[in-house]
Parts: sequence; structure tokens; C-alpha cells
Amino acid sequence: MTGDAPWSISGTTRLLAVIGDPVRQVQAPALLNPLLNRPGTDAVLVPVHARPDDLPDVVRGLQRAGNVDGLLITVPHKAAARAFADGLSPAVRLSGSTNALRREPDGRWYAENFDGAGFVAGLRAAGHAPEGRRVMLVGGGGAGSAIAAALLGAGAARLTVCEPDRQRREALLARLSRVWPGRLAGRGVPDPEGADLAVNATPLGLGPGDPLPFAPKTLEPGAVVADIIMKPRDTALLKSAAALGHPVHHGVHMLTRQLDLYREFFRLAPDR
Amino acid sequence: MTGDAPWSISGTTRLLAVIGDPVRQVQAPALLNPLLNRPGTDAVLVPVHARPDDLPDVVRGLQRAGNVDGLLITVPHKAAARAFADGLSPAVRLSGSTNALRREPDGRWYAENFDGAGFVAGLRAAGHAPEGRRVMLVGGGGAGSAIAAALLGAGAARLTVCEPDRQRREALLARLSRVWPGRLAGRGVPDPEGADLAVNATPLGLGPGDPLPFAPKTLEPGAVVADIIMKPRDTALLKSAAALGHPVHHGVHMLTRQLDLYREFFRLAPDR
Repeated sequence: MTGDAPWSISGTTRLLAVIGDPVRQVQAPALLNPLLNRPGTDAVLVPVHARPDDLPDVVRGLQRAGNVDGLLITVPHKAAARAFADGLSPAVRLSGSTNALRREPDGRWYAENFDGAGFVAGLRAAGHAPEGRRVMLVGGGGAGSAIAAALLGAGAARLTVCEPDRQRREALLARLSRVWPGRLAGRGVPDPEGADLAVNATPLGLGPGDPLPFAPKTLEPGAVVADIIMKPRDTALLKSAAALGHPVHHGVHMLTRQLDLYREFFRLAPDR
Repeated sequence: MTGDAPWSISGTTRLLAVIGDPVRQVQAPALLNPLLNRPGTDAVLVPVHARPDDLPDVVRGLQRAGNVDGLLITVPHKAAARAFADGLSPAVRLSGSTNALRREPDGRWYAENFDGAGFVAGLRAAGHAPEGRRVMLVGGGGAGSAIAAALLGAGAARLTVCEPDRQRREALLARLSRVWPGRLAGRGVPDPEGADLAVNATPLGLGPGDPLPFAPKTLEPGAVVADIIMKPRDTALLKSAAALGHPVHHGVHMLTRQLDLYREFFRLAPDR
């Protein structure tokens, strides 16, 4: 029996799920489970694959389960997920994007977003502080929206949202401009002019045949190239940028820097 | 990282869930997970707590999730669970009870019941072969129905179903009598007269304050007393019966004898 072994799962174990489409690339179970399943914390994080049409059924089903305490939300569900929340954090209201849902003691569900805070913390730890940066952000979806808000909040001088979906782009710019007027621009296609930090916040790079989200050769010399794709670690974008001499910043930093935030949010035992 | 460690859970891990109300007492995760998470089998079994009103939402949600391959069903959902199946095994048709649901390659869900086969195999292994037995079965619900069919199929001479819900009792007797006429009786209350095997197939004994499902002192001398409650291992019924000198048979045998059946059903790697 495994009752006393590490990684034991029993009838008392509480559940967290990370929901995505696809889900096979998620890193959160490998990173978080060592913190969840040990003396004092009887919980496990499992991947759950939900296609967009099935998301409402899958999320509602998990929310109805009595031992599911929280959900992590990843691509492509970050915008849709707030429909399943009874309360929204300021980061969710500003970005329109959710990457964590928690069951409150009263049974209501609260939506939070740590992508932005995690991304900025990762940049800082790597020596790429965002203060004064001129940013090209490619992709104004769930993660991109959260990263945009966090970069502006952290002091980026200028941020250009490059997003082909005009309605999505304008809605994001409108929300952000209310808080940070005069520092934003929008483009339908990538526009690297003057940028010293270029961020891919699209899913391009998850699939082996994906096109590059933008062409690194059009960047200014020395511009930092960051990706939010975690798997593969070295995306085609980052390989191409590195070959051109650009400093690169890997996607996994955004997640590893969120671990402490998740632990606090899900009320898990502190690290020891 | 835990990528190469035993018990690693990643984005590629397939899910099985055991659904009950309560669920904290289930033994299946501790028994099955050591078989699921090892080279060649990337799967994990987690407990899911669903109250009866929430069962449809919870089950449908799990069935919509692309990486959920199967469900185990426990008290009190075994009768309700077949509503979520597209196909039923003979054991499910006969007993009206489901304890396992599997996603077929074509996406349909198939219902099976291993409680009866597991219970009978456990009895045999303990030296209490069912052939020729006169059985008092207390409880005609999900597990009880499956055990009744398996005991009759294994050669029990006579079986009295003691179940206060008249409609449930008569429906079960009607289904079983078609296959095994002349060997069945029904009672509204426990009737130990002439029985040499007495089985508790009710949930009484799960809770610390539960009354006994029947009074062991009314049994014939030497009658075997079996319980299907797994936790606590020594229920008040079994303790009381043992104190009176009756051979007792613990609930966990029904499950441990089902492990090979589950592995085959869920198409998991064979034991090595």
C-alpha cells in the first residue's frame, strides 16, 4: 500500500485541475505536485483536456464536485473562463483573462490571473527589468492581455499590441488606456519598430509546423525576445532570435514565478 | 522535476475517477494507482465527490473531458450511473447496477459491474465457496443487486433479498427470477432463518453512529458474516459477529479481487 508514501492519493485527497486544449504540454502538474502531496497538504493537480465547445460542461462538472478546490486555466480558455466565476480580481477585470479559479469558503468561485505578475517577475529575475521598455506584444488574447497590463503596471514606457482581431485588440486597448493613457498603440500585424522587448503571447510555436509569430530579423539590434510557450522550451522563435544574437527569455519563467502565488491563492501549506 | 520519478503526473497523463458520496473512504486510488503510474502506463485515479443532485453534471463533465478514459462508481450512485452509458454489460442489465464506465474507441461509454464477480472471488479465496449456500442478503441496492446475481450464478442454493424498499426489492427479484427461478425470496426486514451466509450490502457501517444492518445474535451458529463496507475494516457488524464466534469476511476482498478485472477493462498494462 502507498498510504505513507509520498505522492499517495486517497479518498481524502483534494483536487486541482489545469484545463487546456491541448493539455499535453502543460508544465503545472510537474511543477506544482511536489508542493501539493506531502505532509500537511493532501492535494493533487491533474490535467483536464477540454475543447472549447465542451468547456462549459467540463468546468461546471468540476465545480459541482465537492472535492475540487480550484482550477488553472490555460490556452485557449483564458478569456472564456471568467464566465464561470462569481467574483473577479482586479487583474482579471483589467486583462479580461483568467488563469486561476478558486472555490471560496462560501461556495462562490473567484477568478484571478497570475500570468502578468509571473511574466514580469520572470523578466526581472533574468535581468530584463520592464521599466522604461518599449514593448512589442504579439497576441492580445488571454495571456497577452494579462502580460500587457502587468508590463504597463511595472513601468513599461510604451506598449504596442499586435493582434489581428480588431474587436479584441480595440477592447483591450480601451480597458488599458483608462488606467495608462498615452502609452499604448495597436496594430493588426507585428510592428517591431523601436521595440527593445518583443513578446510572443500567441500559441504559435506549440505545434511543430507553426509559422513564427513574427520575424526576428526585423527587430532592432539587442532587443530582448520573450516567448510564453513552455513546451518546447526552445521554440523556433527563440532559436531564430538567438541565432541573430538577441537575448532570449523562455516561457517557463512565467510559470515558475507563479508557484508561490498559486500556493497562496489555493491556501496550500507554505514551502519548507 | 519529477518527470522520471514514479508517480509523476504530466500533461499527457490519462485520468480515471472514482465517484461517490461520500468519497473519502474509497480504497481504489491506493490500490490501483501503483498499477497505473509506471513505465508504459501514464494514468492516475483520483477521487471525485458528487452529491446525488450533482451527479449528472459531474459525470457529464468528466465524460466531455478528452483525457478521462473511465469512471469507477461507488455508493450511492451505482443504480443511477447507467443513465450515463451508451451500452450495458450483461452484469449491469441483470443487477441494474454499474460500478465502472469506460470510453470506447468510438467515443461511446460502456457500463460494467465487477462487484459481484469480485465479491464471489473474495469468498472463494477465503474458503467460503458459494455453492449450495443459503444466503441472507441485506440491501438490494447497487452493490447488493450485483452480489445477488453473482452468488446465484456461482451456485448459491437459495437467496433471500432483505430490502425495505418494496419497489426496488420486487424489481430485483423479477430480474433475477427470470434467470434463476425458484431460488429466490424477498423480505422487507432481515430474516436470518436457515441462512449459512449473511451479507451486508447496505451502507450501514460507514458512519460511526450507524445502527447494525442486522443483529448477528439471530443468526444460525456457524453462519459466515460478510460485509461490503471497506472502511472501517472491522465494522460494528463484523466485530459483533466475531464476538459471537461467527466466521467473518471483510469488505476489502471484494475490491482487491477486482483489480485484475479493472486493469483488463480499462486496457491498462498487465501486471509484471
